[in-house]
Amino acid sequence: MEFQHGGDIYRNAIEYDFSTNINPLGMPKGCEEAVRKAIPHIGEYPDPQGEILCQAIAHAEGVETHQVLLGNGAAELIYGLCHGVRTKKAVLIAPCFSEYEKAVTAAGGICEFVALDEKDGFRLTKNRNRLMDVENRHAEGKDSVFVSARTPAEDVSEWTEAGHALLSAIKEDTDLVFLCNPNNPTGATIAKELLYPAAEKCEAVGAILCVDECFLPFLEDESRYTMKQELERFPHLLVLRAFTKIYGMPGLRLGYALSANTDLLHQIKVSLPPWNTSVIAQAVGIEALKDTEFIEQTRELIRREKEYLMRELRSGLAEQIYASEANFLFFRSRPYLKERLLEQKVLIRDCSNYRNLSQGYFRIAVRNRKENEELIRRWRKF
Amino acid sequence: MEFQHGGDIYRNAIEYDFSTNINPLGMPKGCEEAVRKAIPHIGEYPDPQGEILCQAIAHAEGVETHQVLLGNGAAELIYGLCHGVRTKKAVLIAPCFSEYEKAVTAAGGICEFVALDEKDGFRLTKNRNRLMDVENRHAEGKDSVFVSARTPAEDVSEWTEAGHALLSAIKEDTDLVFLCNPNNPTGATIAKELLYPAAEKCEAVGAILCVDECFLPFLEDESRYTMKQELERFPHLLVLRAFTKIYGMPGLRLGYALSANTDLLHQIKVSLPPWNTSVIAQAVGIEALKDTEFIEQTRELIRREKEYLMRELRSGLAEQIYASEANFLFFRSRPYLKERLLEQKVLIRDCSNYRNLSQGYFRIAVRNRKENEELIRRWRKF
Repeated sequence: MEFQHGGDIYRNAIEYDFSTNINPLGMPKGCEEAVRKAIPHIGEYPDPQGEILCQAIAHAEGVETHQVLLGNGAAELIYGLCHGVRTKKAVLIAPCFSEYEKAVTAAGGICEFVALDEKDGFRLTKNRNRLMDVENRHAEGKDSVFVSARTPAEDVSEWTEAGHALLSAIKEDTDLVFLCNPNNPTGATIAKELLYPAAEKCEAVGAILCVDECFLPFLEDESRYTMKQELERFPHLLVLRAFTKIYGMPGLRLGYALSANTDLLHQIKVSLPPWNTSVIAQAVGIEALKDTEFIEQTRELIRREKEYLMRELRSGLAEQIYASEANFLFFRSRPYLKERLLEQKVLIRDCSNYRNLSQGYFRIAVRNRKENEELIRRWRKF
Repeated sequence: MEFQHGGDIYRNAIEYDFSTNINPLGMPKGCEEAVRKAIPHIGEYPDPQGEILCQAIAHAEGVETHQVLLGNGAAELIYGLCHGVRTKKAVLIAPCFSEYEKAVTAAGGICEFVALDEKDGFRLTKNRNRLMDVENRHAEGKDSVFVSARTPAEDVSEWTEAGHALLSAIKEDTDLVFLCNPNNPTGATIAKELLYPAAEKCEAVGAILCVDECFLPFLEDESRYTMKQELERFPHLLVLRAFTKIYGMPGLRLGYALSANTDLLHQIKVSLPPWNTSVIAQAVGIEALKDTEFIEQTRELIRREKEYLMRELRSGLAEQIYASEANFLFFRSRPYLKERLLEQKVLIRDCSNYRNLSQGYFRIAVRNRKENEELIRRWRKF
């Protein structure tokens, strides 16, 4: 079967991978040593409950330990969720991460898609992000839009048409709603002005709302978007997070789900094998959370490098750049850009196989300066 | 939820773990180094197809590469299989590995159990094993039973009553049959005199026959039992294998399924997350298969140490020892043996929570001499 994601460095001869959105800093300090220290424990089964790691995650995220469920990457939890709740009908936006649809289908369910509109920058809520405003101001000489400290309740003036369509799509027969915040591949955030009403609608109809926040730790204003403090308020809410991207360890497979709904977590857990996270992944996860400066260092790097890449892309490389608050950029450019860059041994994500996208859409990760310069240098060759 | 397996060293203060059946030799040489060499690749997604490892497995097992599907431990493949074929009704024997039932239930199916009979030593086919015969002869002064080189076709004289019941239980409404060879927790092998007719019956009714051979590489006469050469003949056959036990790496999670039925493998694969085996597990798996002497060394150790343990258990420690061809022993002894040994910081597997077993049944792994002596020494204290 054809592989639909970025990162297939195994069947492409490449020197630079911009197709996956991994922290360019790699793992936090101490993590490589944690792998080595875990080697003598490979002869033991992993703790199936991952007790120590769950405690560390709970402490870091400000939730209770029993509200944390570990997964072999967030991807496993997506499948466990779809199998666990026996999903018959799910609401998804398009484009979004393709594994949601695949997991729903694998569980025998069907998906209803809410199409994001290109003219709204493929957004559910309008772009009021300060960081992007700053970037826009830098780039286009405009003043920043003032962002008030208003309570983020239902405020339909913030919704795009797709945002309205999403709320309407959540109905009595909906079992599951997937939202990715910021969305993949667009990098567009979803404001709480829509997240709250969506969560309320899910409570009303009895649907699980899964908010995938795997890329959220890359954002300087993460707290403005995360739903992790709202678990008690919304028992149907499940927040997905991963070590994969922010802690630079996709090769180890480690993600987690947060929910106040212990029945839901149990349903997911019994759909998954008992020893799903390895001894090494658990050890590295515990170590990663100890490095309290790592996230700030990452955000600083991403902010700086994103500005650099935005500037370069704006100077003729991309035809249209969409507002991404994430650690990757989403844009339109010439068809065959992927193939041309692959000739230069650079892999980027051709997004034409996403639902509701077509030829000419691409996604690139924000990497470190040396890598970013190399991308631009090779890109400018043609 | 309560954990039902051995190996819970995380919530028990122990010095010796006899509750899991892992190779006492640990990993083959080179595997620890393979972990260290894989560290720089943690920042990359694993190959979702595990191409190089699948080639190595195919070469080692004498099958085609496309007949191999990797799993995050064999346990993940059990869940993937049950979800993938949308199991409605499965036939299982009792006692057997509890994850089969849990996976069938998780997929929304029900299980029909064929009870193994204590008076037949909990076997599906009669005990004609040479190794055990040799042991019996050693221990009881009897001559070995002659084992002819007859074609292992249907020979009902080899079947126990439970063997007959199994064949009858496989009917038109059966989706899936699980057999573990040798069985867990009993260690009893299933002869081809029953495996072949069971596979034929499964073909006739359209049921998948999953033969879990995770412990089979520990047997000196593995080739006498394995179904891996029969894949082409039985398209409904799936053989499960794991690196976990034989290569001493339960902490890393690596198993695989073999089948000539590519549709079935596809059904399982799409029920699982795409990057299910880690960069490290793949690297170690590739390395482990290079050590061509490891299996022989393991079998030699197990044969010797099993004889030692059998002798000790026979001298009054166990009330009844059942014929196990595997790297673990299954026996009846005084109730509370587990608790008494736990006071001595030794963990064994109390089998009373298996279906069709009750208080007083236990399983211990065959470990190295130092560990085995320590078990016996502490056991003899009370």
